[in-house]
Amino acid sequence: MRRDVSEFAKKLDIGKLSGLLDIPEHRITGALKRKTVQYVWGKKELFRFDKPVSSIEGGTSVFTKPFDIVRGFPKISRTLMLNPALQKHFSSCRKVAVEEKMNGYNVRVALIGDALVALTRGGFICPYTTEKAIDLVGLDFFKDHPELVLCGEMVGPDSPYVPKTFYDIESLDFFVFDIREKITGKPMPVMKRRALMEEYGIPSVRFFGEFEIGEAHNEISQIIRELGGSMHEGVVIKDPQMILPPVKYTSSQSNCADLRYAFEFYNDFGRDFFFGRVCREAFQSVEWGEDEESLKKRCRQLGENLLLPMIKTIKKKKDGERIAENVQIRVKSLDTVKEFEEYLKLVGVDAVFEAPEKIGNEYLVRIRKIHQSTNDRTEAILGGQLWS
Amino acid sequence: MRRDVSEFAKKLDIGKLSGLLDIPEHRITGALKRKTVQYVWGKKELFRFDKPVSSIEGGTSVFTKPFDIVRGFPKISRTLMLNPALQKHFSSCRKVAVEEKMNGYNVRVALIGDALVALTRGGFICPYTTEKAIDLVGLDFFKDHPELVLCGEMVGPDSPYVPKTFYDIESLDFFVFDIREKITGKPMPVMKRRALMEEYGIPSVRFFGEFEIGEAHNEISQIIRELGGSMHEGVVIKDPQMILPPVKYTSSQSNCADLRYAFEFYNDFGRDFFFGRVCREAFQSVEWGEDEESLKKRCRQLGENLLLPMIKTIKKKKDGERIAENVQIRVKSLDTVKEFEEYLKLVGVDAVFEAPEKIGNEYLVRIRKIHQSTNDRTEAILGGQLWS
Repeated sequence: MRRDVSEFAKKLDIGKLSGLLDIPEHRITGALKRKTVQYVWGKKELFRFDKPVSSIEGGTSVFTKPFDIVRGFPKISRTLMLNPALQKHFSSCRKVAVEEKMNGYNVRVALIGDALVALTRGGFICPYTTEKAIDLVGLDFFKDHPELVLCGEMVGPDSPYVPKTFYDIESLDFFVFDIREKITGKPMPVMKRRALMEEYGIPSVRFFGEFEIGEAHNEISQIIRELGGSMHEGVVIKDPQMILPPVKYTSSQSNCADLRYAFEFYNDFGRDFFFGRVCREAFQSVEWGEDEESLKKRCRQLGENLLLPMIKTIKKKKDGERIAENVQIRVKSLDTVKEFEEYLKLVGVDAVFEAPEKIGNEYLVRIRKIHQSTNDRTEAILGGQLWS
Repeated sequence: MRRDVSEFAKKLDIGKLSGLLDIPEHRITGALKRKTVQYVWGKKELFRFDKPVSSIEGGTSVFTKPFDIVRGFPKISRTLMLNPALQKHFSSCRKVAVEEKMNGYNVRVALIGDALVALTRGGFICPYTTEKAIDLVGLDFFKDHPELVLCGEMVGPDSPYVPKTFYDIESLDFFVFDIREKITGKPMPVMKRRALMEEYGIPSVRFFGEFEIGEAHNEISQIIRELGGSMHEGVVIKDPQMILPPVKYTSSQSNCADLRYAFEFYNDFGRDFFFGRVCREAFQSVEWGEDEESLKKRCRQLGENLLLPMIKTIKKKKDGERIAENVQIRVKSLDTVKEFEEYLKLVGVDAVFEAPEKIGNEYLVRIRKIHQSTNDRTEAILGGQLWS
């Protein structure tokens, strides 16, 4: 779907883009040539930044009709040692604001022309998420604030990316954690943002409070243990004014759940994924000064979350099953199903869609995402293929 | 120590090398330019193949005075599923020969001119190993067979690379597992090689027997469990004629010991190192049809071998210690110490040598190998640095 540069580059007003983003034109033409900035075909065509270009985040989307820009969502750094990170990064603010980091997928909702679009982290328009955003967010906020973008987490069982059932959400809900200016990416202070969302009846992620720097460590450790106990992911720690960049910190349980998921499809995930998570466990154990019993439990859980899912996958393959991940979407319009199927092809996901099932005024569609690399690798090893 | 190509390339008789290795001259000059073939300065200068060039293995060493070649030791593939691998790879031989894979370091000993050299896997001359080889192997064999190279494992507590104490070896011993032609790399059949070594009084690695293909799986599984029980590494399964390439298979205990070691110096090891070892555990568990109890134990051990060494390292650093690995060498000549110190610098190992300690007619030298990347990373995270 991504075609020749020369064919599409002329759709992009490079001069205007260069001026608005304050990067030289030749950086943009260079990025187009290297396909760092890619044309994406669709009902609403756009150019997306596959990686950062100068100071502009990867995931930035540039629309052509009408011309508009939605800046990519910046990567949030993680701390492995809570206390020293608080002292080091937030020493210039008196307090930090702590909000929940939910386990769903990151979405930016913006008004482009007269239509809402929901952008994925990578800067693609997801047609399914867009249908959901139209329902969940609506136009009211954007009529008053067309220059803003709502950044939030899409969470719930009807998520084709990160389906989670423990949040007590029926289908899919949207929780805002950031409001930014579309073109500059400038964020709004935490409490102002939360008040604004309340005004429009749009849910925000859970707020745990503002804590003095000196006390934040104990408070957050306690929050993390409680969140972990109910399988929730963790927190994002923020400068209340949103001048300093935020920092994330997560629970061991969420970490292990990620590993469990990734090792079921072990050959489809990056190896760094695994390594970073083992490191998080070790540093958290040291910071918490764990006794032998807790440490033993942590080791056991780590080992089980690595091996058991992988063993399950190998056994499935041995029994002739295809390694796939079952997800589902719930839509009002069957057109959305078709568009979503095309979208998954566009982003390279191999998926089998089952026939829609009418439930109330909606359709439930079960989808099997095929993890081909894990299928191939497991089958080969079971057949006696050697490991390099 | 590796200087400009043009300065050194003239030391190499490229035409002769091209003829003997049967690769075009331009491949060699190209490799010299890209530093895939590198000049190595030393008492005995050589050129080493840093990576494979055409069909020539990485680790191949080419000497200039006198001109000679020692082919690199070929990589041995590993099976994660024993039975299917036996069927798939050795179906054309009636039997397989099984020898122990010892846990030391791979060395090729050859006669170049009138002197023995001991080459590391990478194709460098290790001065320490060379001193040891002169003692352990001697010249008798090479006087009769100057065209052959002895490939074996250097094993024992006085190993600066892989010190192991469980083999009941006093200092360092050499066990032959392959005899090859220096220039062609052609291997000798297993029993012929073992008989030849016996003749010269040079030890070979342990031989478990020759097994019919149909029975080999049970026999080898049993051997692996026993070897694992005493912390030994595993086996190499060979075509007795050495026509088909051999295959290695290792115990879970050795796998876990590797992880324990690597996670103590977690940031100095490749991430693939971890991933491959987790995969081995999962496939072995499936092939052995483990019950819940054995599986639980395997998970616990995996988790402990990942987390405990890393936690130990973090705590050490927290207490202000430097993360280092203690090894030792035992030499007859203090010149060898000096040469070995220079050699470690050449290959980029950061090491602190303590004063030699006279023991009998030898010197024991304790060496602290500094794992700088793990030191830096751990210190930074403890100081609040964020994880990307």
